[in-house]
Amino acid sequence: MSYSDHFSIANLPYGIASTTTGAHRESAVVTRLEDKVVFLADLTLDVSDQAAAAFSQPTLNSLAALSKSELQQIREKLRSALSDSSVVEKHGFKLEDVVLHLPIAVAGFTDFSCSKEHVLNAGEAVFGKRNLPPGFLHYPVGYAGTSSTVVVSGTPVQRPNGVYRAGETIEYGASRAMDYELEFAAIIGKPTKMGDSVKLEDADDHIFGLVLLNDWSARDIQGLEMVPLGPMNGKSFATSISPWVVTLDALEPFATKAPAKEYPVSVFLHEKKENPSYDIKLEAEIIRDGKSTKICTANVSWMYWTFRDLVVQKTINGCNLNTGDILATGTVSGVGDDEHGCLLELTKGGRVEITLADGAKSTYLQDGDGIRMTANCGGGVGFGDCTGFLTPARPL
Amino acid sequence: MSYSDHFSIANLPYGIASTTTGAHRESAVVTRLEDKVVFLADLTLDVSDQAAAAFSQPTLNSLAALSKSELQQIREKLRSALSDSSVVEKHGFKLEDVVLHLPIAVAGFTDFSCSKEHVLNAGEAVFGKRNLPPGFLHYPVGYAGTSSTVVVSGTPVQRPNGVYRAGETIEYGASRAMDYELEFAAIIGKPTKMGDSVKLEDADDHIFGLVLLNDWSARDIQGLEMVPLGPMNGKSFATSISPWVVTLDALEPFATKAPAKEYPVSVFLHEKKENPSYDIKLEAEIIRDGKSTKICTANVSWMYWTFRDLVVQKTINGCNLNTGDILATGTVSGVGDDEHGCLLELTKGGRVEITLADGAKSTYLQDGDGIRMTANCGGGVGFGDCTGFLTPARPL
Repeated sequence: MSYSDHFSIANLPYGIASTTTGAHRESAVVTRLEDKVVFLADLTLDVSDQAAAAFSQPTLNSLAALSKSELQQIREKLRSALSDSSVVEKHGFKLEDVVLHLPIAVAGFTDFSCSKEHVLNAGEAVFGKRNLPPGFLHYPVGYAGTSSTVVVSGTPVQRPNGVYRAGETIEYGASRAMDYELEFAAIIGKPTKMGDSVKLEDADDHIFGLVLLNDWSARDIQGLEMVPLGPMNGKSFATSISPWVVTLDALEPFATKAPAKEYPVSVFLHEKKENPSYDIKLEAEIIRDGKSTKICTANVSWMYWTFRDLVVQKTINGCNLNTGDILATGTVSGVGDDEHGCLLELTKGGRVEITLADGAKSTYLQDGDGIRMTANCGGGVGFGDCTGFLTPARPL
Repeated sequence: MSYSDHFSIANLPYGIASTTTGAHRESAVVTRLEDKVVFLADLTLDVSDQAAAAFSQPTLNSLAALSKSELQQIREKLRSALSDSSVVEKHGFKLEDVVLHLPIAVAGFTDFSCSKEHVLNAGEAVFGKRNLPPGFLHYPVGYAGTSSTVVVSGTPVQRPNGVYRAGETIEYGASRAMDYELEFAAIIGKPTKMGDSVKLEDADDHIFGLVLLNDWSARDIQGLEMVPLGPMNGKSFATSISPWVVTLDALEPFATKAPAKEYPVSVFLHEKKENPSYDIKLEAEIIRDGKSTKICTANVSWMYWTFRDLVVQKTINGCNLNTGDILATGTVSGVGDDEHGCLLELTKGGRVEITLADGAKSTYLQDGDGIRMTANCGGGVGFGDCTGFLTPARPL
């Protein structure tokens, strides 16, 4: 599926692509209109030298580091240029004729815990208790992830080896509890200096755009390592993101309220923007033997903490932001049984089987399985998909 | 103090320096002999074009990425050149005439929990229980740290703001429990591909050298956020490392045994090297009002897990290594009361005062306090110091 209805003239996301022959064998900045991919350097856009140079870079980082106002000007010029169908006809490559690459050089990767439902469900699956962590209602609790293993949608994901509990004993081997996590993430554009903190009202200035993110998780490896330092080897083997970065400008028509705060928060998290979240519909499917089974629907707007909150929390202690940082939401889940954004929740820790489209029963992922996530606002603005297939573990 | 006795011809560590005037205003690779700093590009060393180019880079990464055998050849040539005192006389800058910079462009920062004594003492200080975490005896438990706030010794450290428990309430403000952690770290040279795992017998090939590391910690901020995702804001504001990277070749005469394993480990952690650890004496002092008080002595060889183990554990799940990665040990502590590598242990969570050199009582760090750590093998091989002074928090 190409999801061409996600990429109307109202979207114009950014990505990085190359072609196998011709003038674009070097990766460079592209946008997408329906099923056509256009290299920005091919257009006559009347932009600054800095912007023109950014168009030829193999990552979006130089573009993302431009000021919000310059990016908004570029977006208007791009929209104007591509409104002429002859321009698209002349410069557009068919989607199937380009290779899409990891859109950013990932600086840091920070993952937060934004979904109250996920935290309650995951707690129940692991500990049998629906407790919120001590910090959850006070700020978005987060942890540093591993930036070096972030890959673009389509990259195969190798089942990790590790050490885990197997009944009463501790064993070393290939993970037996491979899971996905349906997440969303902000890509940081404008950096900050170490020692500075971003105010909530300025947070959007630092967000270049959003992407889908699959925080692949080996639940057994994670289970043994979590106390007290949090997840590492259970997640550091791979994280997938979608190839298209959708700007906040494209998402503005879908801005919406966030859930009301259930407990008073500190002044640095007092939100004055009426619609600080986004109405973005999410779906996840498992693909086995070529057959797809939808396993989750969710919505970005359900999350207790917003992307703006993440920017503020990340920097409240003076930690800097860098262009190309990823701030992710953690698993996005809802209250319903069809709204669990990972198999840990859906299968209650691997104890309850789900039924796939062909009638087969399943808990965690098998080698060869794929996970496809999609995100769509409607109105011609969506994210396409973020997909990955699982390959067997490296022999011990 | 210059620690010139740490830097005999037997050491020859690598660093990055510049001068305020003259030919070396651009940062470049240096070594140190006693109190003289020598820019490698100034010497006639007969090295490969790649090595010569690496000498002029503003970080050690290009040098660190060279093969171990080439690095050993460079070291021999360097030792030979600097054995001629006229060469040192001609090319050496006085230590006080150069500025030392962060020696590496930090790729990822992973911090592990290698000291059994620290884990037991910290658990007692926080929870009143001397329990080992579930994974501790099975592999080095770790977490991803924040690479963007790693700074070189001498950089001021700003007290972080954050959210924490204050008695029965949750408050937002400047941390009231500023601590240091006496750590050591390996700097990764040779990278690996995602999906690969390093064998224990090959681990040293990937370690360019070792540094001192201070993992500054705000214990109150950390205390609220730790469950379940581990430390983030309580540590992400700053981490200091020493400016000199001491190579494993310089440390080889000080190789020694690691503690015997108390519990059988998985096959990937079966160590065949007789002396996989290093006898490196560590000290930490607190400096207040210009007066120094020694607060800890420790030794790298006390740690249950070695740097070799860290390399293996980091990659066992297919996570890659990158040149410039930092793999740190966590706090190094011993069994004695004068062997606590952080104030959390030494003051039992801020409840027991220590007496400083001038007779004053103290628990956690005050604004203006400094922490100086040193590491020395003896025999003319040491690390100098890693020092940082605390500045007041940013106004709320």
